[in-house]
Amino acid sequence: MTGGPPEDVRDQDALRDPPARPLGPADGRSEDEAGERDYAPLPDLVQQVREWLDQNRLDLIETLTSDLHSADLADLLEQVGAEERRLLLQVLRPNLDPELFAHLDSSIREELVEIMEPREIAAAVAEMESDDAIDLIEDLDEERRAEILAALPAEARAQVEEGLTYPEYSAGRLMQRDLVAVPQFWTVGKVLDFLRASGDDLPEEFYDIFIVDPMHRIVGSVPISRVMRSKRAVKVQDIAIEDIHKIPATMDQEEVAFLFRQYGLVSAPVVDAAGRLIGVVMVDDVVDVIDEEAEDDLLKLGGVADTDIYRAVLDTTKARFSWLAINMVTAFLAASVIGLFEATIERIVALAVLLPVVAGMGGNAGTQTLTVAVRAIATRELSDANALRFVGKEALVGAINGSTFALLVGAAAGLWFRDPMIGVVIGCAMVVNLFVAGLAGTLIPLGLTKLRIDPAVASSVFLTTVTDVVGFFAFLGLAALILL
Amino acid sequence: MTGGPPEDVRDQDALRDPPARPLGPADGRSEDEAGERDYAPLPDLVQQVREWLDQNRLDLIETLTSDLHSADLADLLEQVGAEERRLLLQVLRPNLDPELFAHLDSSIREELVEIMEPREIAAAVAEMESDDAIDLIEDLDEERRAEILAALPAEARAQVEEGLTYPEYSAGRLMQRDLVAVPQFWTVGKVLDFLRASGDDLPEEFYDIFIVDPMHRIVGSVPISRVMRSKRAVKVQDIAIEDIHKIPATMDQEEVAFLFRQYGLVSAPVVDAAGRLIGVVMVDDVVDVIDEEAEDDLLKLGGVADTDIYRAVLDTTKARFSWLAINMVTAFLAASVIGLFEATIERIVALAVLLPVVAGMGGNAGTQTLTVAVRAIATRELSDANALRFVGKEALVGAINGSTFALLVGAAAGLWFRDPMIGVVIGCAMVVNLFVAGLAGTLIPLGLTKLRIDPAVASSVFLTTVTDVVGFFAFLGLAALILL
Repeated sequence: MTGGPPEDVRDQDALRDPPARPLGPADGRSEDEAGERDYAPLPDLVQQVREWLDQNRLDLIETLTSDLHSADLADLLEQVGAEERRLLLQVLRPNLDPELFAHLDSSIREELVEIMEPREIAAAVAEMESDDAIDLIEDLDEERRAEILAALPAEARAQVEEGLTYPEYSAGRLMQRDLVAVPQFWTVGKVLDFLRASGDDLPEEFYDIFIVDPMHRIVGSVPISRVMRSKRAVKVQDIAIEDIHKIPATMDQEEVAFLFRQYGLVSAPVVDAAGRLIGVVMVDDVVDVIDEEAEDDLLKLGGVADTDIYRAVLDTTKARFSWLAINMVTAFLAASVIGLFEATIERIVALAVLLPVVAGMGGNAGTQTLTVAVRAIATRELSDANALRFVGKEALVGAINGSTFALLVGAAAGLWFRDPMIGVVIGCAMVVNLFVAGLAGTLIPLGLTKLRIDPAVASSVFLTTVTDVVGFFAFLGLAALILL
Repeated sequence: MTGGPPEDVRDQDALRDPPARPLGPADGRSEDEAGERDYAPLPDLVQQVREWLDQNRLDLIETLTSDLHSADLADLLEQVGAEERRLLLQVLRPNLDPELFAHLDSSIREELVEIMEPREIAAAVAEMESDDAIDLIEDLDEERRAEILAALPAEARAQVEEGLTYPEYSAGRLMQRDLVAVPQFWTVGKVLDFLRASGDDLPEEFYDIFIVDPMHRIVGSVPISRVMRSKRAVKVQDIAIEDIHKIPATMDQEEVAFLFRQYGLVSAPVVDAAGRLIGVVMVDDVVDVIDEEAEDDLLKLGGVADTDIYRAVLDTTKARFSWLAINMVTAFLAASVIGLFEATIERIVALAVLLPVVAGMGGNAGTQTLTVAVRAIATRELSDANALRFVGKEALVGAINGSTFALLVGAAAGLWFRDPMIGVVIGCAMVVNLFVAGLAGTLIPLGLTKLRIDPAVASSVFLTTVTDVVGFFAFLGLAALILL
């Protein structure tokens, strides 16, 4: 992408047409001659469900929902109103697909859990993959959690309790227990026989077969495509990859995501402190982490903790409040700088009129730099190796743009107020403002990172404070010096 | 996540310790007794390379770089300075792994392409996966592109030219040609024999076997784990999944990413207009798209088009300029509102002092709403189905927080200037400001989406204009009415 205004009109089609959700299995009922399935975009499905609820046609709703993939059903539940959702849940409750929980937004999932019996929830949990089960259970309050754990079959309970011993957001919580591990000395033929004989004991999907020593420590991994193309007599050890990425159970999930993304992994073994194989992380779980990781930074830079679109009004209000309160304090700080120059403004009111220009330019330029820096820190493109170079570059960019805008803004202000000296004052302030914005936009996130504080959360508050304070000081200070 | 200030200190470990990059294959040279490999974090590698460049130990550099995975080597090249990179490239050039190109940031890749001969580049391109080859070639200027295409072997050239006929950012550009397709009537045994006989003709990695009819139209797909656990006599058609997600070659890549993310896919077949199987999209390519998609929105909300961290100073300056210019215009617009009340400010200078508080609160609250809205539109959580409900909710949240801050800000301002009426005026302005910010933060992105303009690009400009204009008008207007 070359330089130029941020323009990306290719989103048009994606924005205009919501994606179509497939309806129903290929059982002939919803297929036309070419064997195609029915598809419908989500807003249409929501509309249909609303109509059927009004007409009390719960039977039609049941048919529709049983045809939907659980991910699409989750989206449907999320986007109807609260009352409609209650009714829908009554329809769904008897034959609930446990997979639905994994796809639901956590606020909606809480609603569902609250209306169901512990026994029902436990039955669903027992059928889930271990990572989805842990995800659901860790969100529950103490009491409910105890109830549901008590209602679980012994093996499932043991798995969940063990999973909960791993730190939140670690590989141990992300992994599945279901995997395929074979001894070192087996041949391809023996592996195939084993797989055919194991039937339903195997994981539903797997992409690698892990090779373990007698102590169950992992010594290699074979992609199953490689197994398939080898002759029966070949030893698995001979076709195994030995330098694999072993993921310690305590590894942070963002580290795990980095590995998958960097090396194009589809699955990776998880080991305990002794190197024993205890689970596997699958790429679709990592995709969720990658999504959340980028989304997290986007939201934090905007001053929110969560996509609270599904939360109730009061919860959302409270969640938004603290960020606004912090910004209120810094806004008063910036105001106090202006307060130092009350006398100056009384003499030249034009200065008050131009304040938004000063604050705006500094804030925007600083935010540009800050955004690039925060993202680059998150993706490890900005590190100790190139930090100084980056700071220097952004300061220079700030100085150059500052000079350009000194001319533009200075000319505009000078013409507006028919006073060239006002133009000169605001022009000089521009150069200072944008130069400082470039420095602040780099040094603040880098400094916060060194102090082990998440830069996405805290940077923008500090940044706007700095650009406002410096901007107002430079502008009003120069005005007091030069014009009076 | 429950409500509360945005706090996420779990990033600490990830921030403190850059991830370790593996060095070298498991060939005994760099392993200790437990068969572990050497690992080193990137900043250390950069440091080492710098030292060796100073000492002119190019032989040591060559050993180190030949041990690195191409993704890590790409990171190394990205983070050294420009002069160091030139020297490194001289060392790497004779034995360049074509995979390196796929991992390099596009600005750095341009540098590499510029110093290499067309013949060299063509040799690398011929060994790449078709999607990586197209990615490289589409970025070249006309002249260079023609040179390299001319130097390609006929088959590779045909593949690339065909790939270029698909729209940018479509599935056709994302897909690989290498796949495994078998006729409908084959048995598992025949498939295994075929795979064993095909040897190197097979794709290096594959996770599904596609089943085609005599016209090469896709009729089903079998995950290879399922093939492996079935007996030789079983017909593949009997174990195939028929209702698969067929991706038209023209589908937008963000749609493709949606499908993979929604349904947890690992690979998906790409078909032409007649339903014939022409390629396959793999999950690791989609992971890149998902990453970029979220990153894109994050950057656009901050007013930048690109993570320009690797771009030269002047390119970056130009790229930043247009966004700042647009904001300059809107800042003057907001200033002109203040200009209407020059007389009022001359009489009560305190009003000028409080302007940043008014502008800041509105802008921040509006940005919170806007950020949630833009993200929710991108993930399809906000659609026609729940748009109205969302607007109503945010307006209500704005009104409630507006009332709370009316009290806080009003009290602070009243105390500061020892004039309760100033507190009343700014308090009323707060309610109006935050209520309007909630409306604007929802209606602007929704409106832009309806007009098929990317909301992430344009929303924040409109938003701050609205909140500033309305905020200043309400504050100064009320002041003129009440205090004078």
